[in-house]
Parts: sequence; C-alpha cells; structure tokens
Amino acid sequence: MITSAANEKIKHLIALRDKAKVRREEGLFLVEGIRMLREIPPADLDAVFISKEFYKKNPNALPSNAEILDNRIFEKVSAVNTPQGVIAVVRQKQYVINDLTAAKSPMLLMLETIQDPGNLGTMFRTAEAAGCSGIILTSDCADPYSPKTVRSTMGAILRLPFVTVPQLDDVFNVLKSKNITTYAAALEASVPYTTTDYTKGSALLIGNEGNGLKKETLEKVTASGGCTIHIPMAGKTESLNASVSAAILMYEAARQRSFISHS
Amino acid sequence: MITSAANEKIKHLIALRDKAKVRREEGLFLVEGIRMLREIPPADLDAVFISKEFYKKNPNALPSNAEILDNRIFEKVSAVNTPQGVIAVVRQKQYVINDLTAAKSPMLLMLETIQDPGNLGTMFRTAEAAGCSGIILTSDCADPYSPKTVRSTMGAILRLPFVTVPQLDDVFNVLKSKNITTYAAALEASVPYTTTDYTKGSALLIGNEGNGLKKETLEKVTASGGCTIHIPMAGKTESLNASVSAAILMYEAARQRSFISHS
Repeated sequence: MITSAANEKIKHLIALRDKAKVRREEGLFLVEGIRMLREIPPADLDAVFISKEFYKKNPNALPSNAEILDNRIFEKVSAVNTPQGVIAVVRQKQYVINDLTAAKSPMLLMLETIQDPGNLGTMFRTAEAAGCSGIILTSDCADPYSPKTVRSTMGAILRLPFVTVPQLDDVFNVLKSKNITTYAAALEASVPYTTTDYTKGSALLIGNEGNGLKKETLEKVTASGGCTIHIPMAGKTESLNASVSAAILMYEAARQRSFISHS
Repeated sequence: MITSAANEKIKHLIALRDKAKVRREEGLFLVEGIRMLREIPPADLDAVFISKEFYKKNPNALPSNAEILDNRIFEKVSAVNTPQGVIAVVRQKQYVINDLTAAKSPMLLMLETIQDPGNLGTMFRTAEAAGCSGIILTSDCADPYSPKTVRSTMGAILRLPFVTVPQLDDVFNVLKSKNITTYAAALEASVPYTTTDYTKGSALLIGNEGNGLKKETLEKVTASGGCTIHIPMAGKTESLNASVSAAILMYEAARQRSFISHS
C-alpha cells in the first residue's frame, strides 16, 4: 500500500491530473470510477489505483495488479470531492480524420476555442447520443483528457473518435473533398438551422460561447462551399450555452436523418 | 465606505448569497455585474454595492445611493473568483401560474428535482431563447435565486416568469383545464419526441438527470391526458445532460411553431 504523497507514482498521477502537457507527452490520461473503468479495453489500461476503503468493500472487484492507496493519499490524487476510490491510468487513442469520415454520409461535430471543460465533455456525450461519427477540435479548446472533461463525457471519451488540429483551415478542404459540407453556427447568419439539409455528409461547427467563430474561420467555411446558419432566439437572450447550441444542431441533423446512426 | 466584514450589511449580503431560506423569507436575491444591473427596473432594486476599485474606474456609472466596499470586503461578498465589482440586492418577483398561461398556445417548461444550479440556470436561458412563456419547477430543484443559477441564466431570471410548487400533481389538471398538454421526457417512453405536435398549448416536463421523473409523476401525466416521449440516443450513452435534454425538446417545439414566440 502506498502511504506517502512523496511516492513517485503519486506524483505522476497528480501530474497527469493537472498537466495537459504531461498527458499529451505520455499519451495517458486518468479515468475515475468503477463504471468507466469496466469499459476500458485491457490493452488500453496502463495502471489502476484503488483506495484502501474501496478495497475493503470490494476485495475482488478489480484487477490483481491494482495498487492500493491509503485513503488520505487517494483523496489527494482524486479530482473530485467525494471520490469513489478507483482511478485508472489509460492510454490515449490516436485517431486520424479518416477514422471520422469513413461512414457513409458522416455527421461530424467541429469545435473552435471551446474553453469550458464541462461544456466540452457535455458535447462529447451529446455527440455520441446524436449519432455523430466523431469530433474535430482546435488545439485551443479545453483538453478533452482533463479530468473534468472526461467526467462530463460520461464515457463518450472512450468511444467517440476525435482529432485535435492546430486550426481548421485545412480541414474544410479535406472535408469538401469527401463530400462533407460544413455548417457553421453564427449569430449573424441569415439562414435558420432548420432550413438546411443535414442528411448528406455534414460537419456542424460551433465556436466560442463568448466570441463566436473567428471571422477568418467563417470566411474559410464560405470559401470551401460551406454554409453559415443561426439558431433563432426569442426574448432578450443574446446567446445560448455552447453545449446547448451544439445539441440543438446535432439533434436537428439526427431528426432529419431519422435517428439512424452513422458512426 | 464599508471596510469591516463585521458590518451588518455585509453579513446580510453573505446570508443572501449563501442561504436560500434567507432569500425566500426576505424575497430578495443578489445579482452581480454591471450588465445585469442595467436591466433591473428601479422599483425592483433594493440596494447596490460596488467595490472601491470599480468606483475609481467608473465614478459615474452607478446610482448615487450605491455603497462602496473596500476591495477586500467586496471579494468576501462576491460569489465569483474575479468579481466585476458590482452587486445588487434585487426584489424577487412573485408570479402565479396564470401569468405563465395567459398567452395563446403557451409553451411551458416544467422541471422536477433539477438539482444542479448551473443546469437550472442554463434551462432558464434556453427557455427564454426558445420562446417559452415560463417555467414551473418543484421546490426540490436548486434555488433559482442562488448566485450560480442567476449567473447561468445570463439575465433570463429577470425576464422569464416562473413558479415554484411543492409537487406537480395539482398542476397537471390545472394545465389540462387550460388546454395545455404535458409532454414528459422518459427514457422508457415509446414515442420519439419528434412525432408529437407541440404547436398547441404544451408543457415540456424534464426530471432529474440521474433518476429521471418520479414514477408517480409519470402516472399523473398519463392520467391527466399527457404523453411521455423519449429522445433517441445512438451509441452507448445512457442519458443526456438535463439542460441538453430540455434544449432539444424546447427547440423541437420552437421549430414546429416556426420560432414564433408565445411569451
């Protein structure tokens, strides 16, 4: 049993929890809780740590190589206030855009500068439910592998392919070459989102909640044959929550596709 | 200038920030930030407090009766990490169900046991944008007047009528008598939400994210002529975020209504 916070493994867990750079360089991330742990393929599992308390209650629930941490140490490592007592170190999957576009008439979610980790995770969760084939996000979004995002995905992070790109410029032409049309949400767009056809290959693009999509990005969308759309708003609301906007668009696309999943 | 945390006004502000009971008994709540302050009708404004720093930068921006707080004291009172320097004490509005149902073919949002303050606030924001006439929520939901909920509404709390009820049982029959049909979201419902008609008076009912609507509530919905609906989900997602579910239903209703607001 590990009883000291000075233990190298503990330091490593805390670095993986707090530092996107360490996660990226090592290709690892943390997953908390027994439900998500059960979903992880053995080949992707790097290590498992459990609290002494969890072990006492469930002596046979976990792999025999799981390491036991003193409860106090476990609480130091956990990213939540009331930890369940299970943390796994998991290998990141490496996807390429072709993994996301292989389906017939894929539906993609594209995200620019989504900085709230909870919103990002919620978008993963909703994207899987709406039948998206995957997510393309800019590298200035929150890290999909941060503990808060992972938690908000409710497991979708383990299942939904995604690709991080420095910027979207090149992606638009790649998608166009695959007959995938980009639909970009913009407050000033003239076309309501309900009047366009998402039944063919579609990429739904959402920008930062405060600032919207960058002007250059919107220009690139139009230049590559894409379309800008808006979500009508009544009352005095100035904008919608970014994960709400994404959900409204993805579920309109899913409705038009009669909820047939293309992933 | 108030410089002591022992000042009675400061204690009162902190009580209003932290205690739903105090807010309820006094019929007051706190609003932070200059943008929301500008929306508050003078008759609803009980008091305004600003930080010394804010006052220095904006000596003429606020009502002459605004009280100045030492920066350190202001930070103690604020509910956010980086306060803007403006807190208003605002009178709660008292609505009755008739205020919500006066429109022709009203669209209502009904909420049972929504406990996350951020989700609740996001629902207010989305409800206003989707053209809802108002919200009916059970008293075991998060307090709509908590600082986190108020912030998440992005101002909708000041504009959208809402009524808190101990339970929904009686409400269903009241709504029925006004030709408003209840549509309750339930994972096990057989009817997809896109196949029902929301163009007449409609109340969209959402339950707790983890547990869904109570069994008794679903029975009451059916008994009063309402309908249960589900949101189709692809992949292995088990549920959607509650505010995402609400958004999908409200925007489907808004789409069917051609985005004409009935508030």
